[in-house]
Order: sequence, then structure tokens, then C-alpha cells
Amino acid sequence: MAGRYKRKVRRTSEGLNSLGKVKIGVVAPAARLHPETAERVTQLAATAFQGRAEIVFHPQCFLSAGHFAGDDETRAAAFLEFANDPSFAHVWFARGGYGSGRILPRVLNGLGGAAKDKSYLGYSDGGFLLAALYRSGHRVAHSPFPHEIRRSGGDAAVTRALAWMVDQSRDALEPSIDGKHPVAAFNLTILSKLIGTPWMPDLAGHVVMIEEVSEHLYAIDRLMVHITSNEGMRKIAGLRMGRMSDVPENDPPFGQTPEEIVRHWCAASGIAFLGPADIGHDAANTVVPFGVP
Amino acid sequence: MAGRYKRKVRRTSEGLNSLGKVKIGVVAPAARLHPETAERVTQLAATAFQGRAEIVFHPQCFLSAGHFAGDDETRAAAFLEFANDPSFAHVWFARGGYGSGRILPRVLNGLGGAAKDKSYLGYSDGGFLLAALYRSGHRVAHSPFPHEIRRSGGDAAVTRALAWMVDQSRDALEPSIDGKHPVAAFNLTILSKLIGTPWMPDLAGHVVMIEEVSEHLYAIDRLMVHITSNEGMRKIAGLRMGRMSDVPENDPPFGQTPEEIVRHWCAASGIAFLGPADIGHDAANTVVPFGVP
Repeated sequence: MAGRYKRKVRRTSEGLNSLGKVKIGVVAPAARLHPETAERVTQLAATAFQGRAEIVFHPQCFLSAGHFAGDDETRAAAFLEFANDPSFAHVWFARGGYGSGRILPRVLNGLGGAAKDKSYLGYSDGGFLLAALYRSGHRVAHSPFPHEIRRSGGDAAVTRALAWMVDQSRDALEPSIDGKHPVAAFNLTILSKLIGTPWMPDLAGHVVMIEEVSEHLYAIDRLMVHITSNEGMRKIAGLRMGRMSDVPENDPPFGQTPEEIVRHWCAASGIAFLGPADIGHDAANTVVPFGVP
Repeated sequence: MAGRYKRKVRRTSEGLNSLGKVKIGVVAPAARLHPETAERVTQLAATAFQGRAEIVFHPQCFLSAGHFAGDDETRAAAFLEFANDPSFAHVWFARGGYGSGRILPRVLNGLGGAAKDKSYLGYSDGGFLLAALYRSGHRVAHSPFPHEIRRSGGDAAVTRALAWMVDQSRDALEPSIDGKHPVAAFNLTILSKLIGTPWMPDLAGHVVMIEEVSEHLYAIDRLMVHITSNEGMRKIAGLRMGRMSDVPENDPPFGQTPEEIVRHWCAASGIAFLGPADIGHDAANTVVPFGVP
């Protein structure tokens, strides 16, 4: 696990194009991206990184099929096209929503050798892919999406993700990351949906960071019951809590804050509560490369 | 597994009180019950079963602690008091909401021998308890709650549950139950939360019935991804689909009905789709005794 990112820095040169730019491929495993969003991200990268980043948005990002950016076959094919293309240093997920979990079998069956020479970045619903790819020996990172540029202050989030991809800037990383202990980060709902599946990575010894958005307190509590009762999760080094935002009102009042809930289930299950994590569904969300970055 | 209910019928006599009534204890592992609801259920039982049922509502049912009918310790203690009391033939969960999962460790640690001489009935959030009790060799049944009497037409639901408890009336059972194949029934969300926990029973060879309420189609889809990707779930005899009610509007339209979603994931995972099940969060909800009833 150690040296994972040393190796990455070395291999990044394979993802440089002829002009010395870091080549980043964007695909949309879940919801579609608006073309104007892609233009804004391209312009921001050109300005902030002065031609050192080349971002290629796969046309699949702009497709629409009901809830998704194209049907399962189309989204998986686009993902594999970029994952298996040695010219890309990174595959960046356009945005969340829902859909990544649907394409896991197709994606895992189609990955070739070049897929291990790059990293995969995203979060939220993208956690399905991060988990399965990490488990199968690929480099992954919890990271803001291109779509984040639509948030108030979202330029900073996108710039942070790019700073990690282009410069491996440690300023982009979640501040508790010490480069010694392996880490991972998940949306709490997605982590719950991974428990007991063939995509759940072995997180023994990891500091696991969780964040959540738009869930009632009783639902957060129920998710905590679930993840902390899993045998594998009880082997993690500890839990850090990111932001739990846009919590709908509980009726009747739940009587505990999100942090009290998380602390309660950590104590009940013998999992160490290690404090806050600077991650969440917001513009301040940081990068958490899985493993030892 | 076969003979489970033959044994039950024999042992029911232990749950008869001195007047020959079947004694039913009601506890509230999740949300509180209104005292007036208890009175209505008592009156209905007196009328419909002409003194052959004695229903005892534990005072804990009427307590209130934030979201719950008393704190975890209080709810677990009431549950154990009735579970370990040999005078009761059945322990009936007052209602759902949220809270059963929180008291599982306390309940499982406190069950004595008399707890196996009775059955436990409820559904929805109560599925946490049904699962854990079934796994540990207790008799359980998915069943309407006493609280159901507040629904339009709810008298029929409560009468159905009582007809099973008092008379073992097969008219109360979900109609696909054939007395040959083992069965189980869960709320889909609760089943997802059981996956990968020490409370998940071995459902190999079982016909598993699922129902859901108030979940978006994308969330139902995600729940189906979760449960059908679990190794243990792939060993069930097949899935039956109960009602999925009060589905909030999906934006954009999801493009599949709940049945199409369930059929899709059954096909994708090699789990047999066996058709409908007459269960759900409604007055028509039937009784599904786990195992071979």
C-alpha cells in the first residue's frame, strides 16, 4: 500500500500528452453533465493551470436516458474506453446522482492493464466505483467533481481536484491525512450499500471518513447501526466524520446531533472516533486518495 | 425447519391463561403507541374473538423519548420482560417507525429459554428483530401491527394478525405460502440494512418477499443493486414483490416501474422472480411466518 503514490508520480508521465500536459478524461457513470458546465471547467483549467492540464469530456457525459447519462451499456463503454486508454493520467467522474453501482459488473469485467496506470476520482454515488476499483488494485481518490463548478464557490473545489491531479499538491488533501495511515472516504449511504457486496474493499487498518447529505437524523442513525455492526468495519483504524448537510427536520426531534450519533455508534461498536474530516457535499470538499497518499 | 409450526400449535397451550385465553404481549421496540390505539385494539379483540384473546400492552408502549417509545434500555427491558415470560404465547410489536435495530444486542443477550416458546410478530422497522430472532432459532412472523387499526380499513389488518395468533387461521397468511417452501418477508430498506450484519439470517432456499413505502424509484433501484449483489441473497429460492407504495416522483422520470426494477435485478443476479406478494404498508398486509408455516 505504501509507495502507491510514489508509483503514481512516476507513472504520471505516461499520462502526459505530446505538449507535456496532464491528460484528464471525464466520464459520467451516473447523471449527465450540461455541456456549459464542461466549458466552464475547461476554461478554469486553462486559466488556473496555464495549459498544463488537458481535460477531455467524453461525449457520453452529455447523453440522457431517464435518470442517467446514457444507458448502462453506454456509460460502462465510455468508462472503459477512457480507463483502458494509456494516454489518460486520470479518469474523473463528471458528477454524482445515481448510476455508478449499476455498471460495476460491466466495468470490472472490461478493465485492462492500462487501467492500473491512472487514478479514478469522484465521490458520493461514485463511491461504488471507488470501492470496487480500490478493491481490484486501482488507484482511486474521493474528490470534488467537475459538476461542482456550479456551486457557489465551486471554482475552488474544481481547482482543488485539478491541483491534485496536475501537481499532486498536498494542499488539496484532507488535512488529517498524514501519509502514514491508509485512508478512505465514502458517502455514508453508499458505504452502507457496499456492505456485504463483492465490491466492498478490505478497509482493515484504514482511517475511514464519512459524509452525508439530505438524510434524516433517524436515517443517519440507522446507517450507523448498519456500518458499525459489520465485522469488516470493526477492523478499521477509526472513523472521521465529514459534514452531514441539509438534514431534513426530524419529527419528533431526534434528540442527538449527527456528531453525537456517530460518536454513540463508534463507542457501542468499539470503533475509534478520530474527529472531523474536511469532506462533504460542498465547495470545501477535499481530496482523499485511498490507501497511503 | 419443517414442523416449526406444528411445534408452535402444541406449545400455544403454554400461552393460554387460566381462562383459556391466548395471551398476547405488546411491546414497542420503535415508536410509541397512543393509549387510545391500545384501547381500540383491546375492544376489537374482545368483540372479534369473544374473549379468546387477552392482549397485554406493556406500559413501555406509551413512553416517549425523542424519536422512541422510551430509551434503548427501557425498550429492550420491556421486550425481554415479555419475551422471557412463559405466560405469553406471542410478543406483538406495537408499530414501526425506527428503533428496533438499536436494541438488538441488548435483546439478544437477554433472551432466556421461555423466549423460544412463543412467536414474535411485526414488520417494517421490526424486521431488524424478526431477522435476528429467526437467526437465533425463535419463531417470528411478518404481520400487521396493533397500530394498523388507525388506518382506513385497519380493523381488518389487526383482525388478520389476531386470527393467526389466536386460531392459526391460514386465511391470515400471504396466499402464495404453500406450507412446503420456507418463506421470509422484509421491508426492502431494512433487508438492505441487515446485509453484512451478524443479524442477517441464512435465507438459502427461502422464498423472500419484499415491500417498500415512501422511497424514490432510484432508491428502490439502489436497494435492489445492494440486496441482489449479496452472496447469501443469491442462494434464496426466489423473490416475491409486495406493494411499493407512496413512491415520490422521480425527477427526471426513472423510466421503469417498481416491478420492472425488481425483475431487472433478479434477472441480472440470477435470482428467480416469483411474482407478487400480498404484503405492504397497508390494511391488506398479510401474515408471513418465517420458515415453513
